Amino acid sequence: VFSKVTPALVDRLRAIVGAGNVELDDLEPYSHDYTEDFRFPPEVAVRPRTTEEVARVVRLANDALVPVTAQGGRTSLSGGALCVHGGIALSLERMNRIVEVDAENLFAVVEPAVITQALQEEVEKRGLFYGPDPASRGSCTLGGNVAHCAGGPRALKYGVTKDWVTGLVAVLPSGEVIRTGGKLMKNVTGYNLTQLLVGSEGTLAVVTEITLKLIPLPKFRRTMLAPFPDLVSAARAVTRIFDARIVPCCVEFMDRAAVEAAEKRKAASFPAKGAATLLVEVDGNDEALLEREAERVGEACVAEGAPDVFLAMDEEQRRFIWDLRRSIGEAVKSLAPYKEEDTVVPRARLPELVAAVEEVSRRHGLTAVSYGHVGDGNLHVNILKLGVTEEEWRTRVPAAVREIFERTLALGGQITGEHGVGYVQREFLPMAYPEHQIELMRELKRVFDPKGILNPGKILPDGSERRPFGRRG
Amino acid sequence: VFSKVTPALVDRLRAIVGAGNVELDDLEPYSHDYTEDFRFPPEVAVRPRTTEEVARVVRLANDALVPVTAQGGRTSLSGGALCVHGGIALSLERMNRIVEVDAENLFAVVEPAVITQALQEEVEKRGLFYGPDPASRGSCTLGGNVAHCAGGPRALKYGVTKDWVTGLVAVLPSGEVIRTGGKLMKNVTGYNLTQLLVGSEGTLAVVTEITLKLIPLPKFRRTMLAPFPDLVSAARAVTRIFDARIVPCCVEFMDRAAVEAAEKRKAASFPAKGAATLLVEVDGNDEALLEREAERVGEACVAEGAPDVFLAMDEEQRRFIWDLRRSIGEAVKSLAPYKEEDTVVPRARLPELVAAVEEVSRRHGLTAVSYGHVGDGNLHVNILKLGVTEEEWRTRVPAAVREIFERTLALGGQITGEHGVGYVQREFLPMAYPEHQIELMRELKRVFDPKGILNPGKILPDGSERRPFGRRG
Repeated sequence: VFSKVTPALVDRLRAIVGAGNVELDDLEPYSHDYTEDFRFPPEVAVRPRTTEEVARVVRLANDALVPVTAQGGRTSLSGGALCVHGGIALSLERMNRIVEVDAENLFAVVEPAVITQALQEEVEKRGLFYGPDPASRGSCTLGGNVAHCAGGPRALKYGVTKDWVTGLVAVLPSGEVIRTGGKLMKNVTGYNLTQLLVGSEGTLAVVTEITLKLIPLPKFRRTMLAPFPDLVSAARAVTRIFDARIVPCCVEFMDRAAVEAAEKRKAASFPAKGAATLLVEVDGNDEALLEREAERVGEACVAEGAPDVFLAMDEEQRRFIWDLRRSIGEAVKSLAPYKEEDTVVPRARLPELVAAVEEVSRRHGLTAVSYGHVGDGNLHVNILKLGVTEEEWRTRVPAAVREIFERTLALGGQITGEHGVGYVQREFLPMAYPEHQIELMRELKRVFDPKGILNPGKILPDGSERRPFGRRG
Repeated sequence: VFSKVTPALVDRLRAIVGAGNVELDDLEPYSHDYTEDFRFPPEVAVRPRTTEEVARVVRLANDALVPVTAQGGRTSLSGGALCVHGGIALSLERMNRIVEVDAENLFAVVEPAVITQALQEEVEKRGLFYGPDPASRGSCTLGGNVAHCAGGPRALKYGVTKDWVTGLVAVLPSGEVIRTGGKLMKNVTGYNLTQLLVGSEGTLAVVTEITLKLIPLPKFRRTMLAPFPDLVSAARAVTRIFDARIVPCCVEFMDRAAVEAAEKRKAASFPAKGAATLLVEVDGNDEALLEREAERVGEACVAEGAPDVFLAMDEEQRRFIWDLRRSIGEAVKSLAPYKEEDTVVPRARLPELVAAVEEVSRRHGLTAVSYGHVGDGNLHVNILKLGVTEEEWRTRVPAAVREIFERTLALGGQITGEHGVGYVQREFLPMAYPEHQIELMRELKRVFDPKGILNPGKILPDGSERRPFGRRG
């Protein structure tokens, strides 16, 4: 259905972005993201520098019926950045400028390839704060965060990417540019295209500029580790913390296998750990109040069965704990080939979900490691290829994943909380929504991208690009 | 283009909702909202009780090509609830049940006609908090809040309606029901239909159930009034408050005319007032900390020219001030016929906007009263029909409004912050967006509502229902 990249097209791409920014040889970096071991090389990688260049590239591709997959830090965990139909990898790596930090109005304007951590550090220098904090913040880009509506541990208190995006500049496949929102806390001028684009994984438009809300930087933080005999006690402690009207900025959960994987990889040891370990962080602007909050968090944990609670005494200890926590993803994935899921349920149902994951994995003879954001109900499940044959892996995993998703949905949850549907979850979308709702999404896709050239093979189950006419009307 | 409501259709409506819930006689209440003096009677009003009944009514109307305008509290200030093409007023008044307050997961599930204040009070009884607080909270409904993405004074700290909606049940014109999101803090499973529907003013679907996030109730509040010699000093005080890393929950601005209108209407007096008066409220869970914050807010105001700052000593004084503040809208509107605008700019540009409004009004020989949410840049401008002839009113107002919008847009603002485009702003939408972006919105509308029966005459400029085929592709 798509056309191939021809030498003539390559010449036209060179004319737009310059010969040095059209890559035909070293396509390996553009062929994968952080999703399992997938490799989908594009036919060509293009590195535009401006919205105008993006518009010209995309229009050219649209006219030629060549797929375009926008790429940022390629840290997607759902295959969002994979060029599954080949075509053009539209790498935005050169659009990496922080355009403005507007401290007076409390907004930042950035190009899509700004690294998340780079923005965090830049605004923190000025006493400001950007909330979303995905584990890959050192290498993921804000454009990628927008594409997937990235979350992270602070979502509990500070929300996810969508809660911080107030405006976008985006290029449609036609080459037309739309500008949505702005440095505005309130805006109801027409349909909310900003929020429709956030989380759309580059399938509707290519985002080339992002306006982000900022808030004053919370001055103080207290970080604790609480070991529990089991997850149910840990979850009860979280409820008790909320009952005390404390909203921590993070409540992270790690099972024993996740803790051990991180410790092994970093050759370091968590100062406190149990069958279920919670990492709790509170923040605020009043140190004395924060001390009291930290004490009350500790009391809540002890009341629910934590034998002791470790409190980081300084920034160094805090960093140490967080480095270990952030290494879990990579550590677990380094143990063996894996299949990762990103389930999310109402917070209080998390113990049931963890129990279901354990039961399902055990029954299928599979090894699962779970960790994630117990404060917001988001559990990362890694099924590891340990002690199974290739054949067992191939047959058991899809069946187990399907069962885990069934249990997740039955708990009022959804199949992906922050990684996106992407390439690896799309076959499961019909579990989440009835056909007429998926068809509605297909039609939205067609409004933006009638030829289906933008990041094809993502979100929508197969067939999405093929139906030429709408069902409705 | 639309068909009329026939006796046969009325019979079928009666069969769906019961004869007692089909109103043909007393249609006056269904003919207006809070927007100026507009009257657009529907041909029939229907009061369904369930999602299923809504679905059957809407499908019937869609098949018969009869317009359907969903109505809640009819407090819209942009004509959002007006039946401008007649047809069916779909009053959701009987769907007014708080389905669930889930204190464990911190979510509420409500039917669309629950009064905003009723939910606030219900959750506050349980130590929980729902953030959005539109001035009309005593009579507006949560469904209407969702339709318009209602804001209010607390948006500064707590965001607007969209930031609290995590899930919807909605009926499409086909009668199909979609379920989006849920009791989930994170969810990226497919396109964000939830956020596309919030603020879509009932033009895409009829929302029949809403899932709302809750947070622990802030225990303490301190409310202050600070009079300033001019708005520039007041705005500087706001910047100084933020620089001190204090995020108040409200910073309200009233010009002298707004203060006087409220005082006259309520026969009461603000305990402090100036050429520009700020109402500042801080909240939190630690009373001592809050006292300190209130002191620092006071210091910031005095440093920027407030001769003194009034601090409400108890809940009674606080209520007194807020009652006066909330009465401004009605008070100003009772002075004379009026035209209200709902401009929004980046916060720090507000003094420029206020100056522009004054300059433009004066030059056109018109009287304008301004008040609003200085903390989030949202200014309500009321142009009053005082000392002008009918002819002058008819010609001067549209010209003045257009100029005010031009100045607003030039300041990086938008033409409506929280009232919605509705009926009264839609002719100005082409000032806000280029034609291709409006056409994109038209195509989104057509995906949901191909026959254009849902709340026709709203948001999109004329012609939106008439183009049978998309421009794209």
